[in-house]
Amino acid sequence: MGVVKSKRMPRAVRERQMMDAAVRTFGQLGYRAASMDEIAELAGVSKPLVYLYLNSKEELFTACIRREAKALAEAVRAGAQPGLPADRQLWAGLNAFFTHTAENPDGWAVLHRQARTHGEPFASEVAAMRDEIVAFVTGLIGAAAREAHRDRALPDRDVAGLAQALVGAAEALAGWANDTPGVSAKEAAATLMNFSWAGLENLMNGRPWQAQA
Amino acid sequence: MGVVKSKRMPRAVRERQMMDAAVRTFGQLGYRAASMDEIAELAGVSKPLVYLYLNSKEELFTACIRREAKALAEAVRAGAQPGLPADRQLWAGLNAFFTHTAENPDGWAVLHRQARTHGEPFASEVAAMRDEIVAFVTGLIGAAAREAHRDRALPDRDVAGLAQALVGAAEALAGWANDTPGVSAKEAAATLMNFSWAGLENLMNGRPWQAQA
Repeated sequence: MGVVKSKRMPRAVRERQMMDAAVRTFGQLGYRAASMDEIAELAGVSKPLVYLYLNSKEELFTACIRREAKALAEAVRAGAQPGLPADRQLWAGLNAFFTHTAENPDGWAVLHRQARTHGEPFASEVAAMRDEIVAFVTGLIGAAAREAHRDRALPDRDVAGLAQALVGAAEALAGWANDTPGVSAKEAAATLMNFSWAGLENLMNGRPWQAQA
Repeated sequence: MGVVKSKRMPRAVRERQMMDAAVRTFGQLGYRAASMDEIAELAGVSKPLVYLYLNSKEELFTACIRREAKALAEAVRAGAQPGLPADRQLWAGLNAFFTHTAENPDGWAVLHRQARTHGEPFASEVAAMRDEIVAFVTGLIGAAAREAHRDRALPDRDVAGLAQALVGAAEALAGWANDTPGVSAKEAAATLMNFSWAGLENLMNGRPWQAQA
């Protein structure tokens, strides 16, 4: 295929290149310091073309947030395999989360650091993605609690609070793992799995969570 | 004392009034939307006096972050009573944290939402306070782990990761508790204590953490 080389790339491909360059630049330099010149250069296109496709630095940044948020939410959803026992689902979901944030450190920096540190409308974009992940985790914990068949089920509000705690812990750990040389995604996932599933008491007494074969 | 009423208040008192008004305004309206006019009016002083004392909106906001960060860190330190068993120290520290954030919702909004959403130099101010709290929690977990006298102590890196997870969970829960009508500080502290100490498995099986008398 493709014997004739064309200088004209499909718009979608060019746009993806620009977005890749933008995520990298915003993630590493921050929203303010990043310049459209640098983004265009990194993408190998002219600056007017970036403006033509993505309109403005603000719209480009918003598009980056949306793309990275969608990719992260999809990775977590795809990772947590329904049908598994609750602890295995959680383990799979955490692995997916930390693997994605480790493989896309610039995307994670855009979402977690940049999008939240430059006011609106960016903060709302990332809040919407966060709400979606919290809702997903809430469903997971709620299902696990029902599965456990206790006479006294966990009240909805407790489940909601636990989901907030788990998501907050995951966010903090992802930033720490990316900033700390040598901490792998698996290690970060294992730390959080142990923390959230087995609790500190068990950890201190040498009883970590263990995946059943 | 004070039979002669004076219109001249000590500078420290006036400054505190301005800062109180500023924290409330920044916390409720956000850094951008808050105006120096509103802050002056709420403090019951003239706008030039606010500028005379605090220089600029940026310096006023920085002073608010510092004051609120210091107050929160001190509340947590004072709450966690050294000498208690590890779980009781953690429980006391969490109670102090959630009580403080519930009683100072505007201060917490300044630290957690505003300071992190308006770039530098504000983000660094709040990061320094966060690092201090993480270091304190790391010390707490490390001491608890040594106390547990296990042959295989928790590696330092695990302790550091657990501290990150715990602080991230606490931040997320404090925001949720303040935004959710009817969630008390004690309830938020209990949710996090159960989550962090007993773990999800125990919670789902109806084995929450219980304070020993």
